[in-house]
Amino acid sequence: MRFFSDNAAPVCPEILEALARANSVDTAYDGDALSARLDAAFSDLFETEVTALWVSTGTAANSLALAALCPPHGSIICHREAHIQNDECGAPGFYTHGASLLLGTGEGAKLDPEEISRIAGAIRDDVHQMQVHAVSITQASEYGMAYAPDEVAAIGDLCRAKGWGLHMDGARFANAVAHLGCAPADITWRAGVDMLSFGCVKNGAMSAEAILLFGDAREKAEEIRFRRKRGGHLLSKGRYLAAQILAMLEGDLWLDNARAANAGAALIAEAAPDRLVHPVEANEVFIRLSSEEAAGLRAKGFDFYDWGEGEARLVTGWNQDAEAVRPLAQAIAAL
Amino acid sequence: MRFFSDNAAPVCPEILEALARANSVDTAYDGDALSARLDAAFSDLFETEVTALWVSTGTAANSLALAALCPPHGSIICHREAHIQNDECGAPGFYTHGASLLLGTGEGAKLDPEEISRIAGAIRDDVHQMQVHAVSITQASEYGMAYAPDEVAAIGDLCRAKGWGLHMDGARFANAVAHLGCAPADITWRAGVDMLSFGCVKNGAMSAEAILLFGDAREKAEEIRFRRKRGGHLLSKGRYLAAQILAMLEGDLWLDNARAANAGAALIAEAAPDRLVHPVEANEVFIRLSSEEAAGLRAKGFDFYDWGEGEARLVTGWNQDAEAVRPLAQAIAAL
Amino acid sequence: MRFFSDNAAPVCPEILEALARANSVDTAYDGDALSARLDAAFSDLFETEVTALWVSTGTAANSLALAALCPPHGSIICHREAHIQNDECGAPGFYTHGASLLLGTGEGAKLDPEEISRIAGAIRDDVHQMQVHAVSITQASEYGMAYAPDEVAAIGDLCRAKGWGLHMDGARFANAVAHLGCAPADITWRAGVDMLSFGCVKNGAMSAEAILLFGDAREKAEEIRFRRKRGGHLLSKGRYLAAQILAMLEGDLWLDNARAANAGAALIAEAAPDRLVHPVEANEVFIRLSSEEAAGLRAKGFDFYDWGEGEARLVTGWNQDAEAVRPLAQAIAAL
Amino acid sequence: MRFFSDNAAPVCPEILEALARANSVDTAYDGDALSARLDAAFSDLFETEVTALWVSTGTAANSLALAALCPPHGSIICHREAHIQNDECGAPGFYTHGASLLLGTGEGAKLDPEEISRIAGAIRDDVHQMQVHAVSITQASEYGMAYAPDEVAAIGDLCRAKGWGLHMDGARFANAVAHLGCAPADITWRAGVDMLSFGCVKNGAMSAEAILLFGDAREKAEEIRFRRKRGGHLLSKGRYLAAQILAMLEGDLWLDNARAANAGAALIAEAAPDRLVHPVEANEVFIRLSSEEAAGLRAKGFDFYDWGEGEARLVTGWNQDAEAVRPLAQAIAAL
Repeated sequence: MRFFSDNAAPVCPEILEALARANSVDTAYDGDALSARLDAAFSDLFETEVTALWVSTGTAANSLALAALCPPHGSIICHREAHIQNDECGAPGFYTHGASLLLGTGEGAKLDPEEISRIAGAIRDDVHQMQVHAVSITQASEYGMAYAPDEVAAIGDLCRAKGWGLHMDGARFANAVAHLGCAPADITWRAGVDMLSFGCVKNGAMSAEAILLFGDAREKAEEIRFRRKRGGHLLSKGRYLAAQILAMLEGDLWLDNARAANAGAALIAEAAPDRLVHPVEANEVFIRLSSEEAAGLRAKGFDFYDWGEGEARLVTGWNQDAEAVRPLAQAIAAL
Repeated sequence: MRFFSDNAAPVCPEILEALARANSVDTAYDGDALSARLDAAFSDLFETEVTALWVSTGTAANSLALAALCPPHGSIICHREAHIQNDECGAPGFYTHGASLLLGTGEGAKLDPEEISRIAGAIRDDVHQMQVHAVSITQASEYGMAYAPDEVAAIGDLCRAKGWGLHMDGARFANAVAHLGCAPADITWRAGVDMLSFGCVKNGAMSAEAILLFGDAREKAEEIRFRRKRGGHLLSKGRYLAAQILAMLEGDLWLDNARAANAGAALIAEAAPDRLVHPVEANEVFIRLSSEEAAGLRAKGFDFYDWGEGEARLVTGWNQDAEAVRPLAQAIAAL
Repeated sequence: MRFFSDNAAPVCPEILEALARANSVDTAYDGDALSARLDAAFSDLFETEVTALWVSTGTAANSLALAALCPPHGSIICHREAHIQNDECGAPGFYTHGASLLLGTGEGAKLDPEEISRIAGAIRDDVHQMQVHAVSITQASEYGMAYAPDEVAAIGDLCRAKGWGLHMDGARFANAVAHLGCAPADITWRAGVDMLSFGCVKNGAMSAEAILLFGDAREKAEEIRFRRKRGGHLLSKGRYLAAQILAMLEGDLWLDNARAANAGAALIAEAAPDRLVHPVEANEVFIRLSSEEAAGLRAKGFDFYDWGEGEARLVTGWNQDAEAVRPLAQAIAAL
Repeated sequence: MRFFSDNAAPVCPEILEALARANSVDTAYDGDALSARLDAAFSDLFETEVTALWVSTGTAANSLALAALCPPHGSIICHREAHIQNDECGAPGFYTHGASLLLGTGEGAKLDPEEISRIAGAIRDDVHQMQVHAVSITQASEYGMAYAPDEVAAIGDLCRAKGWGLHMDGARFANAVAHLGCAPADITWRAGVDMLSFGCVKNGAMSAEAILLFGDAREKAEEIRFRRKRGGHLLSKGRYLAAQILAMLEGDLWLDNARAANAGAALIAEAAPDRLVHPVEANEVFIRLSSEEAAGLRAKGFDFYDWGEGEARLVTGWNQDAEAVRPLAQAIAAL
């Protein structure tokens, strides 16, 4: 059984069905009936007016959002473990036309206002340095931890006070909401988030993510539409992306899938309380594991990534709920 | 019945089946078993070693190819009706970091060596002007015409002699091959084409196109892989793109679909020989049509785009073969 | 005697003296006392509040201005003979991060509202095409013709109505003002110009040009300062640029130099009324000249550029007034 | 007396004289007789074939060199105190079209092979991360320390082994050579340096720096010429830049000026041996200084920058030799 990545999981059946249902003649690009329903669907979910644009990757979602928040000569503060820094081959620099990422540290790959202020404080206020224009945080974080509503709000307050934009990389937003049990609004626009990359692919979709714009940031929609086209991200049969996203929202599939993955991770965590490197709040488990122990698990058919010396990362997908991961949990407990 | 665009057609059933078949756990990004089969599949089809990379849009395919062929300070010659000039919101300029398009003219949206030489000849050989580095032609052209093998070869010879790269936008490559009855190799690498955007979406796929690299251009694969990731075009569940493309190639589905669409266009053309603006060689029909006539057709349920004053464009999809379009053909003949 | 370019002329003595006078310790970059005087000096000259920034080339001035007026996904309308199109190796595309130039035609390398509207009218209002954001005109034009105040105003009105920015490439602005006898304000902000590249180098300076911002465009100064630094155009000893510009303005040296150059061009024009390709309104003379005639003039020591088949371009510098060019005028008259 | 920056010093008289001597008609851009002499002059100095290009700022020199060494999707390793990171507003990111800087640490703002290897070792070898393509070191460093020939060679060996380019920011190259007493070749091409930004402005020039290309890197000259034009850095009266650079090289003015500045710094260092934060090897002195002491020195007319808490930076210019700075040295000794 594989625990490499939630990207390795198959597509969940409701998504495949939605694709089949969408399979008729309609207008090309984003002029179709399904794409037209996205704003309303997300506005319902987030209890406010939302402008939503589909794209096919999280990297595109993050980069297009950041390009709308930061000029080429500006900087964006993020955690040094952030996906936009470590896993996107400089896509934010490409889409922003050269803006730089300023890297912070913090437990569990989370930033806090003090660290953000420290980083910003090191930038001289002159034209010789790239000034801060935005902050990007990841929910749930790269280490599977969630920002509580008040933690996001504290960062949001700082951004508002400074005039910076606030972006949230929500590749695992669903897992964070499932853990926190809060309203999606509580950790986004109510807490000062301007733009959210709402992830679907790691949560069971095939190839659709959504860029969500809240409040004044909705005025950037037009610009982002041009940037999306220019980035080659306006699919001509975009209705198949909209169909995936709508299927995700329907009947709270997005939350059900995330809850299943979280439950799988929780069971693994329960089996190894003393091995945990970070608290398990989403669908990622980081454990201390000797190379012999790792070899032992692999010999039993469990695959996963080593995560530096003596550690391992185990990620559960929407189809790896508690029941599905029980054999792994037992194998770890038995080490 | 709609004749707006082959992008408006549904996905053909073989593609949906291939997506369902692909629906299991596999490695993320392009490390999966299906993606690994692409090079061989295209090498078979093109009778030479081909390196193939999937992307989800033709704009991405074109732009990534051009960025590998032309530096930021260079120019690319194309027809002034080319998709890369008129319909991609400057994506080639984005991906090349500012290269310019030099626009030529020519019957049926086709270029020839004389026109290309004329354009290049107007560029002074000094640092004050952006020097030509590549040519991009469209097969079939924006006006639905095909370059014969010797026409491509003449352009290829010029490019070789000048040291320029030659890119082919093959959004409707299948329709051109179906019309010409030649081997795919005859109008690509054998004729000097370095890179081909091999279109699938207009031909029945959902969201997959392929960038094909021939000969020495295969050395650019590594660079393009980085540019693809950086452009946000490395889908994490890339196997669903590979699955679409492999399904297209299997049993010559790509040719069957194109032949069907071409046949539909041919039937419309037969019904209106005196109205044709361009010879019909692929799946696009441009006809002279008064606004009253257009209104009459629309009243009968046929939808299509006006194409300037007194002209109309009718595009047939993979599912609009001769039988399917007969009512339109009869309605036009009856005008 | 050389009539290749006003760039080939030496630096005028007042400029060298100003450099010597500026030669003392002062603050680096643009924090010095001379740079601080630019806004006031230009505000006096233009009878309105002006924000002025020095750079060392006209290409930098034009590109920085355009980058502040047009987003990466936008277009700028200019004449197809414009310097920004033909002689800057794509610098506007570099500084705007990919905006495209839309090329118009017009007598004497001048645009008019009809042509501008025609070009803009060909752009579909959708995300597939780069929308117009600015117009750039050249004063005096590439063919040595001046836009009268009402001609600029007509373009300015169109730009205001459309919400486009209006940039003026004034590499030979002085020559235009000397010809028109108007106030500088009349052909700039009063006529709707937002940004002016105020040329000095072709008019006797060594290495200084000014970007002038009028009205609301002054709010872009901060952004341009960052872009200037980022482009490597914030000279650390910037006071020597400011010194040149201030010397140009002092005692109307800029106008005196331009009048001298214009007078030289006028005398040549008088000697060849039947040969003129364009009316001579600045310091450039375009004449019909057979290759034998050209060879004859060259044999007498007059150097200049051929300008296509059977034509020649003669440009006079600040040091080539009527008296200085009399031998050439006589030689042409004697042909 | 001001010790803010060597940029604040006046231009040295030989430079002004050279400008006056150059003041005659010549070909525009870099086609003039003076520009044509640069390659030979630098080839003599460096005892090898050198291709030299003038620009007007160190930021332009650094950025153009780096853009020729690193693709948009690559990374450049430099010290976290490097000018290209801290003082150029992201110009390298602009000119490279988005390459990132990877920041190292090291005593005296110097890198060594171990640190460089450590940084490179943290980059995964896949398309998700920007791969290392070049290293940039500063000679003398931001803290006024020089790399000895063997120190450069050790880095050069690593770069060769890895296939990376090696760039040297030589804004204060002269001061390093003056300190080391070595041949310029010993710390450049003989030690593996591909490109050098040869600084003149901090050393008494007005507005000229040189990009020097050694060995195989000379093949990049053509590309850099296009990039220079495109960046707006091809001055039309470029001969006045060439004149400055040639004057610098003539009679070893560049070394004499640097020796004078170094001697000034050395005298200050002698006066405060216990206060030194870094060894003084060039023309910068970093000393521990309480705020009361700083105020005391300022009250006596000595100006300089605070450098963090309890430290100060004193920079000497070409005109601040030992004799000139004696009053400051005495004032510091008397603290």
